[in-house]
Amino acid sequence: MAEFIPPGTRWIDLPERFPMHRGGVLEHGRMAYETWGTLAPDGSNAVLVLTGMSPNAHAAANEGNPDRGWWEPMLGPGGPIDTDRWFVVSVNTLGSCKGSTGPASPHPVTGEPYRLDFPELSIEDCADAAAHVVRALGIERLACVVGNSMGGMVALSLLARHPGIARTHLNISGAARALSWTIAIRSLQREAIRLDPHFNNGHYDDADYPESGMRMARKLGVITYRSALEWHGRFGRVRLDAEHMEGEPFGLEFQVESYLEAHARRFVRSFDPNCYLYLSRAMDWFDLGDHCAERPGAASDAHTRAGLESIRVEKALAIGAETDILFPVEQQRAIAEGLAAGGAQSDFVSMPSPQGHDAFLVDYDRFGPAVRGFLDGI
Amino acid sequence: MAEFIPPGTRWIDLPERFPMHRGGVLEHGRMAYETWGTLAPDGSNAVLVLTGMSPNAHAAANEGNPDRGWWEPMLGPGGPIDTDRWFVVSVNTLGSCKGSTGPASPHPVTGEPYRLDFPELSIEDCADAAAHVVRALGIERLACVVGNSMGGMVALSLLARHPGIARTHLNISGAARALSWTIAIRSLQREAIRLDPHFNNGHYDDADYPESGMRMARKLGVITYRSALEWHGRFGRVRLDAEHMEGEPFGLEFQVESYLEAHARRFVRSFDPNCYLYLSRAMDWFDLGDHCAERPGAASDAHTRAGLESIRVEKALAIGAETDILFPVEQQRAIAEGLAAGGAQSDFVSMPSPQGHDAFLVDYDRFGPAVRGFLDGI
Repeated sequence: MAEFIPPGTRWIDLPERFPMHRGGVLEHGRMAYETWGTLAPDGSNAVLVLTGMSPNAHAAANEGNPDRGWWEPMLGPGGPIDTDRWFVVSVNTLGSCKGSTGPASPHPVTGEPYRLDFPELSIEDCADAAAHVVRALGIERLACVVGNSMGGMVALSLLARHPGIARTHLNISGAARALSWTIAIRSLQREAIRLDPHFNNGHYDDADYPESGMRMARKLGVITYRSALEWHGRFGRVRLDAEHMEGEPFGLEFQVESYLEAHARRFVRSFDPNCYLYLSRAMDWFDLGDHCAERPGAASDAHTRAGLESIRVEKALAIGAETDILFPVEQQRAIAEGLAAGGAQSDFVSMPSPQGHDAFLVDYDRFGPAVRGFLDGI
Repeated sequence: MAEFIPPGTRWIDLPERFPMHRGGVLEHGRMAYETWGTLAPDGSNAVLVLTGMSPNAHAAANEGNPDRGWWEPMLGPGGPIDTDRWFVVSVNTLGSCKGSTGPASPHPVTGEPYRLDFPELSIEDCADAAAHVVRALGIERLACVVGNSMGGMVALSLLARHPGIARTHLNISGAARALSWTIAIRSLQREAIRLDPHFNNGHYDDADYPESGMRMARKLGVITYRSALEWHGRFGRVRLDAEHMEGEPFGLEFQVESYLEAHARRFVRSFDPNCYLYLSRAMDWFDLGDHCAERPGAASDAHTRAGLESIRVEKALAIGAETDILFPVEQQRAIAEGLAAGGAQSDFVSMPSPQGHDAFLVDYDRFGPAVRGFLDGI
């Protein structure tokens, strides 16, 4: 049970009693964020970056932390998100374990981690908390809100719930709602964690930790972030050396299995399992159509579309990867079309990247110019 | 620990000492099979159906068993595989728990189930055992060998290892080798079973059974057999009634989760976990290129292609579904092209079915006419 806070992190306190979308109140919460560049005197050059489920706010190297960030090639002086021009803010999502308040954070009264006593978390809460950061930084209107993957959900919620907060929107491999197939994948990831006897209903510690459940969940994540044909090129059918092969029956034998194992092992102790459950479920719950439906969970296709149409931005671009099975490109197409129907000058680009949902973190040759082109034109 | 043998099953004994491809010998094994139609006096009308990993030999209702089979709409009088014309044989794969000898079968000496003492099983063994059934039924040359999914791998191995055994070949959602992404999925399924404390290195019983591991493995299977857009149409974001919703934190909430749960529960006690592990690993190991490479596991893309080119059939058709992420259509295209290079009149059809890998079990409107058309022309 730990938080994983990068050096150079800054914080903004949430309102003392922050109301949660599904009920309850979060007390004395705070949001972790980082910035790059300089805010223009008229405040017109602010860009907000909303992340996927697991990254921290350290998208790229900056004065507070020279380490490489999770989106390093995308963000910097002269980069696709040019920090010579833009004042860029990245927030760690509410509910995370990487600086912002979440299930692994200490409860303000008891001092003990919230664990499963953290209030129910929704994408709407993540959006409201991000909006609070924007306002606290003195930004009246963002030039652009950029959201990747889960961050693309948060961005749409932010735009719908806080009209006028951004002039333009760039949605990358995001979605206006969770699809049932993706819910099934995430449900299985959560089940793997919950089934681990060491999960103990959220009351694990470092010595007694749901390691194998987290490992299963992460492996399933990594698999579904990618595609069959890309991995064939990377791993083929290469076997492990005899010394790395597991002697036990049905043990690791192929390089791809060893890759997954190493990847998962790095992750399991650097992300809190309770936070994983909360953020994963928040994505399942998200449907922008709830904004227009009579009650949460009652949104139809038409409601989701109406949610998109209710958003007012001048320009928008939705980008996706053809090989993405988790947030299929049809979802980004729907975002672009819905925002266009709402009055935006809105485009959709489907990239032939082989890397699936992860393409925006890997295929900078394609995603970099698209991002640069959009920001150049706003 | 049990076998699940449908009524009406017939058996053919394997040779007393059946040599296994990766070493060792299977003693006193037997193969379960069923038939439809009548073998022509000249033996020219025999069609062999090789199944995916989990089905039994009961592909359709017949005299021995009037129950609906797993491929009922495809096989019968006047059907796409017309049993008025063809003498159809379906075998339960070696290593299964549905009639043919496998890890759940009793060891001939001890009378106890083999469990993990079963010899290493490969697709080549499944092919050799199927070839033995064909010969034992007095069939010199099959008119066609039809293979689905794993059965498509077995069929290619059969054709390569037993030249002349079939005049034509119909490969449905099959592959000439396992791709690394698919290996990763199957590795994760096996890991879920192995991690279950009740697995106990294969020494479970009905009272102490790796239920949750099998449930996870099956859910992951069902998810990867389908596609995001199909499930959106089927399940949308429909919630369970309050009475079916699990009260516990992170319990079932969406209809798609409940569907998966019910599907998995039906499966886990009707397929033996050790058999699951053996058959799953056999698919990972399979590369038709091994037939041409210096040693198993050393096959390159060129070897796999050479393996296909080494096969001699008059006609072939490979069919796949565009939405299949497990056996992507590129694999069926490669089969058709390789067989063509080997001299066959060979076609490839990519179906726009939304049902993914399972399409051949569901989308009879598309797969039925394609199968009928091919068989009409041979």
